[in-house]
Amino acid sequence: MLLSEIATRLGLEHIGPDREILGVNTLESAAESELSFLVNPKYVKALESTNAGAVLLSSEHAPLVESALLSNNVYMDLARVVSLFAKSQGDFAGHSPLAFIHETASVHEDATVYPFAFVGSKAVVGADSVVFPGCYVGERSSVGEGCLLYPNAVLMADTTLGDRCILQPGAVLGGDGFGFAQTPVGHMKIPQIGRVDLGDDVEVGANSSIDRAALDLTQVGSGTKVDSLVQIGHNVRIGEHCLVVAGSGIGGSTRIGDGVVIGGQAGIKDNITIGDGCMIGAQSGVNNDLSAGSKVTYTPMMEIGTYLRVGASLPRLPDLLKRVRRLEREIEQLRTTENGENNG
Amino acid sequence: MLLSEIATRLGLEHIGPDREILGVNTLESAAESELSFLVNPKYVKALESTNAGAVLLSSEHAPLVESALLSNNVYMDLARVVSLFAKSQGDFAGHSPLAFIHETASVHEDATVYPFAFVGSKAVVGADSVVFPGCYVGERSSVGEGCLLYPNAVLMADTTLGDRCILQPGAVLGGDGFGFAQTPVGHMKIPQIGRVDLGDDVEVGANSSIDRAALDLTQVGSGTKVDSLVQIGHNVRIGEHCLVVAGSGIGGSTRIGDGVVIGGQAGIKDNITIGDGCMIGAQSGVNNDLSAGSKVTYTPMMEIGTYLRVGASLPRLPDLLKRVRRLEREIEQLRTTENGENNG
Amino acid sequence: MLLSEIATRLGLEHIGPDREILGVNTLESAAESELSFLVNPKYVKALESTNAGAVLLSSEHAPLVESALLSNNVYMDLARVVSLFAKSQGDFAGHSPLAFIHETASVHEDATVYPFAFVGSKAVVGADSVVFPGCYVGERSSVGEGCLLYPNAVLMADTTLGDRCILQPGAVLGGDGFGFAQTPVGHMKIPQIGRVDLGDDVEVGANSSIDRAALDLTQVGSGTKVDSLVQIGHNVRIGEHCLVVAGSGIGGSTRIGDGVVIGGQAGIKDNITIGDGCMIGAQSGVNNDLSAGSKVTYTPMMEIGTYLRVGASLPRLPDLLKRVRRLEREIEQLRTTENGENNG
Repeated sequence: MLLSEIATRLGLEHIGPDREILGVNTLESAAESELSFLVNPKYVKALESTNAGAVLLSSEHAPLVESALLSNNVYMDLARVVSLFAKSQGDFAGHSPLAFIHETASVHEDATVYPFAFVGSKAVVGADSVVFPGCYVGERSSVGEGCLLYPNAVLMADTTLGDRCILQPGAVLGGDGFGFAQTPVGHMKIPQIGRVDLGDDVEVGANSSIDRAALDLTQVGSGTKVDSLVQIGHNVRIGEHCLVVAGSGIGGSTRIGDGVVIGGQAGIKDNITIGDGCMIGAQSGVNNDLSAGSKVTYTPMMEIGTYLRVGASLPRLPDLLKRVRRLEREIEQLRTTENGENNG
Repeated sequence: MLLSEIATRLGLEHIGPDREILGVNTLESAAESELSFLVNPKYVKALESTNAGAVLLSSEHAPLVESALLSNNVYMDLARVVSLFAKSQGDFAGHSPLAFIHETASVHEDATVYPFAFVGSKAVVGADSVVFPGCYVGERSSVGEGCLLYPNAVLMADTTLGDRCILQPGAVLGGDGFGFAQTPVGHMKIPQIGRVDLGDDVEVGANSSIDRAALDLTQVGSGTKVDSLVQIGHNVRIGEHCLVVAGSGIGGSTRIGDGVVIGGQAGIKDNITIGDGCMIGAQSGVNNDLSAGSKVTYTPMMEIGTYLRVGASLPRLPDLLKRVRRLEREIEQLRTTENGENNG
Repeated sequence: MLLSEIATRLGLEHIGPDREILGVNTLESAAESELSFLVNPKYVKALESTNAGAVLLSSEHAPLVESALLSNNVYMDLARVVSLFAKSQGDFAGHSPLAFIHETASVHEDATVYPFAFVGSKAVVGADSVVFPGCYVGERSSVGEGCLLYPNAVLMADTTLGDRCILQPGAVLGGDGFGFAQTPVGHMKIPQIGRVDLGDDVEVGANSSIDRAALDLTQVGSGTKVDSLVQIGHNVRIGEHCLVVAGSGIGGSTRIGDGVVIGGQAGIKDNITIGDGCMIGAQSGVNNDLSAGSKVTYTPMMEIGTYLRVGASLPRLPDLLKRVRRLEREIEQLRTTENGENNG
């Protein structure tokens, strides 16, 4: 694709000589046939040594390269330019005769169902959605339009997905929540009869798990992106446009607002409420409600500014103990002297 | 089902007008055709505004509602009442011709095997057990009666399950333990030739993994419930009626007693012993033996009462450093004055 | 197998009476027909009570047993001796007619492909490799010789594996990295058009996930072993002969040298560099570059020696606060007295 054509398709200005662009790559790895990009001005030096045939960057850096594509939001336009070169996963079409599609299921004729996929009774799969091998779409589940269910993704019964959702391989929606009543003879399972509902444009990472509700609904709002190996408990409600980074876990019945960012390996207690726009640091332990816009991290949870000071102080703690011991001795000496004087 | 019929079936007393009950829901969400419940007295106010047609509660709260089902253990009876309304996952029966069942395997005629399930040589599947699509039951594995192997659950060779076990989607039993010998040319794999054994009524959460033993046995006792995304290392022995919450990990060869509760994202070191009835807090790092009944949390692990004080103190650490610096200066001044006086 | 035969096959010396050995087991569990081993001298007492027919141990302990196999590296020779008794997982051979193998795929005639495995267009599977049920080998992916892809392992398109790699059940290679551009209307997905490459002898644990690169390559070097439930972000490069223990996570674009050991549940930030031979403690939060040979742990990350002192000091923090408060009062008193004297 010519650089000029890319510019036209994305509505961007290009400067310098036109040339054929075959792909996109980092400044470090790009070949002359590739377009690169400068998102972070910190890497501006790499413009000198890159072999990239052209660079997507903001106009202020344009003088530094021969051939450029100008952008006011480089990261967003990078997403758009990469989309021009991206190949879809998989190259099948149609409903494979090696799939199992229940006779009462309703799979759109423009959807793709791979071999060894299972679509249960009364399940619905919308137009342009793709169900890869090993996927399980349980009875009465509903998959919107343009969804991608990558290999071995599981939707247990009654799960609903909006449009353009992406389930990475091994993602599980609608496994039972972890609910047991204590009895004299052990833990009695509380049947989990609720379900899971995802809005539009939700992504769920590889081998993540979103549990079905005990009674009503576990919900993930439109535009929210969940990374790999995340656990979302039963009855959780997550708002729109959140980011939930890999390895984190959210306890049952917790409510999370819109635009919340949850760092990697963070743990959020059950039955609490996190307001809109909160930022939760990696490995945090969030054990209490957070008002909108809070920025917290660490266990015990604290405001990020506080943590930076606490974290810097912690290695000095053993020395602090010694210093306090010395102070105590010195005070003791002073008091003794004092008493000596007063009594002297 | 009539409220009176529910009462009869569960052996509970009901008061107030009888009515048709179509399901169970929270006080907040229940409709008039639904039964609700009051487990935690904290939510007693919700009784005023609920639309529920009847409420399961303890007799002391009965005067607050028109129609009630009385219970001495509301949470347990909630489990029982929900069971009356719960539908099973899946609606197949029989041995699908689209499954692979090895000719030497023994699958009970009352067991269900879905399309694309694999049952290996000499494997056994007991009566009323269900093997969903994508499950793998390795050679010589044995599944008891009434077990549910949800989609894509994996039992590697020689794994044994008692009766009424539930494997949530993607659970893996019998993957290789992580054992390597250091050699001058790298890590040499120690073949993991042991196996995994689960007692009766064990549940394993979505995408959790229980490794086969290096030599003999990795064991999970009857009644123990393991949540999602949990890792249990090779040769671990877990007792009966434990709860292992999501995201936690247990290192190889560690022994865990009966009735232990392990919080979410906790990590337990290899080769240690945890006594009966221990409570281990979320995100703990347990790096040493615990005697029966211990309650610990945090990293470094400490008694829960200690942690509450330490956690409350931590944000004050930076200020403490300043205060000690000030004390040191003041002491220095006092000593100088002292010396001045003494020398004066 | 006779003890003498084991000795011959491994090039080891045996002493004491020869006997038939049917397996390998721990000192505690071994029967008379089994060989046991003493790796850790701490367990030397167990030699007295073991029923093992013979013991693999270092020559210094040989006098303590009747029948022994002598080794200079017991743990390594244990790996070798166990290999003599290990059975492979699975007992199939050939290309199952119940598998799906694309007509343009190239599967070696000595490779095994189980029922319900999927091998996509132009994919390659080398000699003696085994693809278990439920595995997905995406288009243009390449699996070397002697690899084991256990059930439900997933290789998305263009993934490459060297020789003798092992993917435990549910491992996912090549799921999309977590990359989104912020836009006024939400998170715009940056298509992940890079790929994943594993060297030779790499093992990936059950339900772990290694994301495909955004643009070029996510790479795991030869001999590196990754445990269960590990998340490796897009564009990460891990060197050779590393150990990555269960539950840990590595953020995008981070570079990790050779021979690095990463403890369980550790979290490593994106875009940093970890030098060769670093040791990273369990549950660490690594948020900055580490030079070769660093040994760190904890969050905030600190040198291991420092952490041991900090960890021992932490429980004393609440008491320290009280002590400093007392010191402040005492100093105040002393200053008052001092002033009294000076003014008196």
